[in-house]
Amino acid sequence: MQDKILDFLKKKSSGYISGEEISQHLGISRQGLWKHILELKALGYEIIAVPHLGYRLVSIPDRLFPSEISYNLNTKFIGKKIYYFEEVATTMDIALDLGIKQEKEGTIILAEGQTKGKGRLGRSWFSPKYKGIYFSLILRPEVLPQQASLFTLLSGVSVCEAIKLITHIDVQIKWPNDILIHNKKLGGILTELSAEMDKVHFIVIGIGINVNNDKKTLPMNATSLKLKLKENINRIELLKEILRRIEENYFLFKEKQAKIIIEKWKEFNCTLTKRVKIIAHKEHIEGQAQDIDLDGSLLIRCDSGLIRKITAGDVIHCR
Amino acid sequence: MQDKILDFLKKKSSGYISGEEISQHLGISRQGLWKHILELKALGYEIIAVPHLGYRLVSIPDRLFPSEISYNLNTKFIGKKIYYFEEVATTMDIALDLGIKQEKEGTIILAEGQTKGKGRLGRSWFSPKYKGIYFSLILRPEVLPQQASLFTLLSGVSVCEAIKLITHIDVQIKWPNDILIHNKKLGGILTELSAEMDKVHFIVIGIGINVNNDKKTLPMNATSLKLKLKENINRIELLKEILRRIEENYFLFKEKQAKIIIEKWKEFNCTLTKRVKIIAHKEHIEGQAQDIDLDGSLLIRCDSGLIRKITAGDVIHCR
Repeated sequence: MQDKILDFLKKKSSGYISGEEISQHLGISRQGLWKHILELKALGYEIIAVPHLGYRLVSIPDRLFPSEISYNLNTKFIGKKIYYFEEVATTMDIALDLGIKQEKEGTIILAEGQTKGKGRLGRSWFSPKYKGIYFSLILRPEVLPQQASLFTLLSGVSVCEAIKLITHIDVQIKWPNDILIHNKKLGGILTELSAEMDKVHFIVIGIGINVNNDKKTLPMNATSLKLKLKENINRIELLKEILRRIEENYFLFKEKQAKIIIEKWKEFNCTLTKRVKIIAHKEHIEGQAQDIDLDGSLLIRCDSGLIRKITAGDVIHCR
Repeated sequence: MQDKILDFLKKKSSGYISGEEISQHLGISRQGLWKHILELKALGYEIIAVPHLGYRLVSIPDRLFPSEISYNLNTKFIGKKIYYFEEVATTMDIALDLGIKQEKEGTIILAEGQTKGKGRLGRSWFSPKYKGIYFSLILRPEVLPQQASLFTLLSGVSVCEAIKLITHIDVQIKWPNDILIHNKKLGGILTELSAEMDKVHFIVIGIGINVNNDKKTLPMNATSLKLKLKENINRIELLKEILRRIEENYFLFKEKQAKIIIEKWKEFNCTLTKRVKIIAHKEHIEGQAQDIDLDGSLLIRCDSGLIRKITAGDVIHCR
């Protein structure tokens, strides 16, 4: 009911709408409406009521409420269902649990803050409340387990495209999953999968972005969109654009396969052609980052001339 | 308490033990003991009581009770914790759920019957009650996701070794996961994983074996150990031996890497050197099965001379 009332207010956001009009349309009493308005105000919606004119929505709160994300989202399946939390340990574990319970493709698990935000290899992702965007997305692509890392690239591309559209900031991707501004970490993408050997059952994409963090609420060597722009960014609009971009790129991937995603990824990347050190599973590799393979792996030309295919690891850009 | 009483009875399985002796050792009353004996009888334990002689354990029921599996199992971690069910949909889903909840490595989920036993690619595994061995095992090896299929091979080897030791029947493995007797399906292994790109979080190995099935309780083109041996097999001893073998091979793998498992696997395999058709993810491949790669993949020499690496698929042996 509150969502419906908000819809009315938003349609008239320039002017007033009478309580009577809303009440009649929604079939509730004036007193019932007033109670809902009070509840919306408690959530942070600034709504003024002027006798003889009615209600007017002045501002919406800086919260990623599902009703705000869904409003004019216009996606086919990404973000159609949203689990919203004020604070959780990590949205990843909730998503994995829901994935096993057959939760639909496209569902997102969203939190204003995480107490144990997850990075790669059990590292933490600092997730202060109301500052960033932290969510996990359930996908069920028909791919083999070894193709799962393509979705890290796809999500990276989508985040970069959305940031560019909303803030006009140029961001870069360091293989495989770091979103950077001038070599400082702005965001990260964590891909987890549940699979058998023949088939991915589902993938969970975790995305964390530092949006409105000040220096105090950022780890060392990290940055935020606010630090770059010197103003607060509308997290709702940014998140909506990320969801739209993921959906668009996912459809592109289905239609035209991995190649198109990798081409897009290359435009944003800052790893290729560089000399890199890679700390991978149980070994260190050094060489020139040459290309991305069709499964999202990084191809390194070692000094011996040998080409090594790296599926995962920490990359250090030399110089 | 019942397990302790059983322990006493088993130690004297050749003769009688007085109720007084058991009662004193366990600090319970004679009446208390009698109640437990009745409960054990209700579970299917055949226990006789003779005045002046005491109790004697005549036989244990044909059930995979955790206390029977644990008895003299002598493993370090495999099967140390057992979740036992009379009947479940599938032990795989319970194991996946427990895996996410940080259940320890080595825990098994065991059922006398499954109503929705799982095979590869959502196929079913027919699991009639009390006839076969159906369990899932949680492992947490430090490997990359693409190495997970090695554990399919490792488990296949362990099952074959155990069957050979307990029943002296020669069984074969068809890549990747079918256990066969004369081309008829005796068992199967399903490997599922939960991972990020850099690291496997856990693997669930599902094992299903047709043990004491008659023709009526077998699908088409399947067989059972009983059909081959013309007598019932002790499922408890077979399961215990499988668990011991998995542990032994797992330690071997950790010590000497994949190579030793692949060598063992080759001894049991009936796929290599054969001409095969492979129905893999979205394509068909035909050629000669040439070798197994270090990550457990099958290497096929196509007629063009090209070597193709297959990570998963249905294999048809030609001729």
